[in-house]
Amino acid sequence: MSKIIGLLQIDSTVGDLAGNAERLESLTAIAQANGAQVAIATELAVCGYPPRDLLLQPDFITASFETAKNLAVEIPVLVGTPIPPDHERNLPANGVVRAGVLQAVPNKDNTNRVVAKKQLLPSYDVFDETRYFTPANRSGICRSIGDIDLGITICEDAWQAAGLTPSAYGQDPVASLAEWGRQGVSLDATVNLSASPYHADKVGSRIKVCRTAAEILQHPFLLANQVGGNDDLLFDGCSLVAWPDGRVVVAPAWQEGVLLVDLAVPENCQWIAMSEADAFAIGEDEIKFLNSEADGFEESTEIIEDITDAVIAGLADYCRKSGIKRIVLGLSGGIDSAVAACVACAAVGPTNVLGIAMPSRFSSQHSLDDAKYTAEALGMEFKIEPIDGMHTALEGTIGEVLDDGNPVASENIQSRLRGIIVMAHANAQNRMAIATGNKSELAQGYCTLYGDMAGGYTPLGDLYKMQVYALAEIFNQRAIELGDMPPVNESTMTKPPSAELAPDQKDEDSLPPYEILDEILRLHIEHTMDADDIVAAGHQRSIVVDVLSRLERNEHKRWQMSPAPRVTSKAFGQGWRRPLASRHDWRD
Amino acid sequence: MSKIIGLLQIDSTVGDLAGNAERLESLTAIAQANGAQVAIATELAVCGYPPRDLLLQPDFITASFETAKNLAVEIPVLVGTPIPPDHERNLPANGVVRAGVLQAVPNKDNTNRVVAKKQLLPSYDVFDETRYFTPANRSGICRSIGDIDLGITICEDAWQAAGLTPSAYGQDPVASLAEWGRQGVSLDATVNLSASPYHADKVGSRIKVCRTAAEILQHPFLLANQVGGNDDLLFDGCSLVAWPDGRVVVAPAWQEGVLLVDLAVPENCQWIAMSEADAFAIGEDEIKFLNSEADGFEESTEIIEDITDAVIAGLADYCRKSGIKRIVLGLSGGIDSAVAACVACAAVGPTNVLGIAMPSRFSSQHSLDDAKYTAEALGMEFKIEPIDGMHTALEGTIGEVLDDGNPVASENIQSRLRGIIVMAHANAQNRMAIATGNKSELAQGYCTLYGDMAGGYTPLGDLYKMQVYALAEIFNQRAIELGDMPPVNESTMTKPPSAELAPDQKDEDSLPPYEILDEILRLHIEHTMDADDIVAAGHQRSIVVDVLSRLERNEHKRWQMSPAPRVTSKAFGQGWRRPLASRHDWRD
Repeated sequence: MSKIIGLLQIDSTVGDLAGNAERLESLTAIAQANGAQVAIATELAVCGYPPRDLLLQPDFITASFETAKNLAVEIPVLVGTPIPPDHERNLPANGVVRAGVLQAVPNKDNTNRVVAKKQLLPSYDVFDETRYFTPANRSGICRSIGDIDLGITICEDAWQAAGLTPSAYGQDPVASLAEWGRQGVSLDATVNLSASPYHADKVGSRIKVCRTAAEILQHPFLLANQVGGNDDLLFDGCSLVAWPDGRVVVAPAWQEGVLLVDLAVPENCQWIAMSEADAFAIGEDEIKFLNSEADGFEESTEIIEDITDAVIAGLADYCRKSGIKRIVLGLSGGIDSAVAACVACAAVGPTNVLGIAMPSRFSSQHSLDDAKYTAEALGMEFKIEPIDGMHTALEGTIGEVLDDGNPVASENIQSRLRGIIVMAHANAQNRMAIATGNKSELAQGYCTLYGDMAGGYTPLGDLYKMQVYALAEIFNQRAIELGDMPPVNESTMTKPPSAELAPDQKDEDSLPPYEILDEILRLHIEHTMDADDIVAAGHQRSIVVDVLSRLERNEHKRWQMSPAPRVTSKAFGQGWRRPLASRHDWRD
Repeated sequence: MSKIIGLLQIDSTVGDLAGNAERLESLTAIAQANGAQVAIATELAVCGYPPRDLLLQPDFITASFETAKNLAVEIPVLVGTPIPPDHERNLPANGVVRAGVLQAVPNKDNTNRVVAKKQLLPSYDVFDETRYFTPANRSGICRSIGDIDLGITICEDAWQAAGLTPSAYGQDPVASLAEWGRQGVSLDATVNLSASPYHADKVGSRIKVCRTAAEILQHPFLLANQVGGNDDLLFDGCSLVAWPDGRVVVAPAWQEGVLLVDLAVPENCQWIAMSEADAFAIGEDEIKFLNSEADGFEESTEIIEDITDAVIAGLADYCRKSGIKRIVLGLSGGIDSAVAACVACAAVGPTNVLGIAMPSRFSSQHSLDDAKYTAEALGMEFKIEPIDGMHTALEGTIGEVLDDGNPVASENIQSRLRGIIVMAHANAQNRMAIATGNKSELAQGYCTLYGDMAGGYTPLGDLYKMQVYALAEIFNQRAIELGDMPPVNESTMTKPPSAELAPDQKDEDSLPPYEILDEILRLHIEHTMDADDIVAAGHQRSIVVDVLSRLERNEHKRWQMSPAPRVTSKAFGQGWRRPLASRHDWRD
């Protein structure tokens, strides 16, 4: 008899226990209807990842645990949930309970329900788990669950074996399970309940983790991953299975659904999308079969396609979980606001997006034309609000201060007047303003606090400038494929970037060309290279020193940035430690 | 022969290794000149606390360690520093090295220099140490250091014994040292190198910690604490010693200097302030002797005096470490901006502060008069910039949007126009703008993003409204004592608070009276009471529900707040995880 497991790829909402339970029940029903004997959910699926300071409330831990145990399901499901501590002076565990009827185990006490606790608690980058949890020192095993015997690991538990953690832990759950195997403990497969955040090409790392574990354990290794966005943390899904011979099956990204896994026959794996109307779904519905040679997805066009979906998914899910229906943004005719408008239209629909062109005395006619073109191509609302009158009025009152002082003051005034107009539309019409900045300019402080930085979300905030151009090409291509007008015209794509805050101003007057700037920033931020290393990599010292010193000098600005979906391997600092837009009041 | 130890109460600057080393050397020289055989610095004194992501740079760990070991001092000094790991896949330790000549130990290798590593790594509230450090499992001892034998603990190491940690650790360094004592290891005293942040009445907890440890260990327990401000983290100093019989000596707060401790004769303890011109010093130069009955400082006037100094110290040190010489703020004639002006003048001097009154059509004459009065009383710069013209101009262009929409849009416009004017002065004149909001209004979202929230620092951001009034009284009293005009006049103290953004608007139209609001907020934020608990404590349910729901709904705003010095036992969320203004480039 074949052994079929359903991996539940869920978009949990942090704090929404009832809603998450309902989603888990629907996904389990799909898995069951398609022949699964067992379903595997994601890490902390019942409360959403990351629950952060909700975990400091003992009532929340208990409510999550009870909800997870009591899911209304007809096949056994392994569900990630916080597990209450045995003593109030101890921290809870990040664990897994078995929901559904307990056939083999007559008594229903918690001990039999709790099948695993996480051993390796990451506390680096976006993770902060030692703050909230106590680690277990023993690997999880669940026997006779729908005739299947499973090893159980939780996210990070599997990463040490692949050598992909920044520092070493004192134990290795995969090695422990393998040792048990050598001592005669026979398992059909090992599962991993994950909430593994996205960045470009992260799936390649996950494939390596699963292949390594499958090879060490000599049985299939299955990873169920969360999908969706929580502020700047994105989860791409891409749940996957690896077999000891290196074969891998990967579920689609940015989709809720079930990856149905036949342990014996990889080719029988299927993806079943979630049927509900409100299911989270962006992009292609595609399952991938990799043989033992293909190491992952490596073509850069695929990565840019994926980043495009990631950015849309981030904004769409932020709006969905925060109850935001409509968006407003400044539309300057430049590349950033054009691409931000494309993202906004894809996320909430063009009829829910308003773009405002706000020309000043330094704005060119082509800027206005280009802005109008983009708005029309996308089918979004568009209006023009010149700021020159206000600018002149302001100069009339504080002109002397401006004339005598740092000239940046006068430039910032224009950006802030635009901020006022965008925010007035946001406040009056219950729209969310989005900021249109990119990672390159934010890194250099080439942006205005309370001006163009104003807004509740920064969709392009973790994309380098040249990636913004690449996204423009994807949006154009997608429009052409649908027979629509490409939203970013030739003029916007090719004119030299300019803030248009002073006569004939060009970005390159203040910054190196973006091809160079982006590369220096990437080497420093993502590869942690210092000035000497970057010069050795072929860059001009004076440029490198200027770029790094602007980066340091403007750090405070980046901390005032609204959330930006993380798409690079290292985003700025630790801005992720924010409140979650999606943090529901779990007591409702 | 008497045994004299100098506790070095230092204001380290994060990342400024050379500057901190110089300060440590000066303080040690003071201790030596006054008869100390040994000096004890604070936790991570050489790199400043908290160094945060600097700790992810291996070069920084090494540079700190080398700097600490090689201090130019003539008596032995125990200095807090990160200790490099033995293997690159391991994390560093938060440790203590012995600087100065190694008399008793002929070889100079690192093993002999490292005298302790921290055992208990806090990861709650503002602490995040498991992220950066690996814990030790053995207590520190340093023998024959200037004829003295010392037990060594680092900050949190001593808090478990007093039962003052939120969750239990698996070990207790104080109990271990006591056990060693029972087994014949004889020590003269145990020291604790701390970086223990301030909040109101925190010193009471530290006294309890030291008394508990001294009683358990049956010898004196000495705690050296960091002083000064790092963004929203403040350190008050108040280094102290407790004897087993309950006697305690406490150094002054908000001062750099040396607490000279005679282990045998508590009455001989002395405070010697740092002599350098740039030493950090706010408030009174007073050492306190407590007998075994007095439990700490409990009078509320002393607490408000201390909070006043804390708020001044926070802004002053933020400016000093960030190179900010001048400040600008909006001066409305209300209580918040009047008190913020008092703080700014105390922090950087009145001639370096500019207050701008920006009346709108809804502003009253008394507001303008009161603002002018405060500016004159403080001796700061003052100007008037009416916003009505701009307001009218803006209504002319987007009036329709405003008329049809949420009325808050029109109110926010006024606040944001003021933000533009304040920021224009900041940018033009290289001043830092400060935001004048308090914790009560920020908790309720009764403030405008990019408007009155604009600015690099929020001096009153962790003070409830009624505490702002209490601070006004302290500033008035201090002025009167100096023979100056009290800066906050009767009218500002007694008129009903109003945002003056709509005709006859009063805060109480939208919020409960501040006495009630403050109390509900305090019960919820500081005592983690939910709605039911607060109602049971005697508050009206409908008010409680409104307050808590506004608190939740406006969480995103608080995360855009600039740093505010922490003065309550629980500040908002975890806003402390910001870049440090003081984070020097340590490679300079």
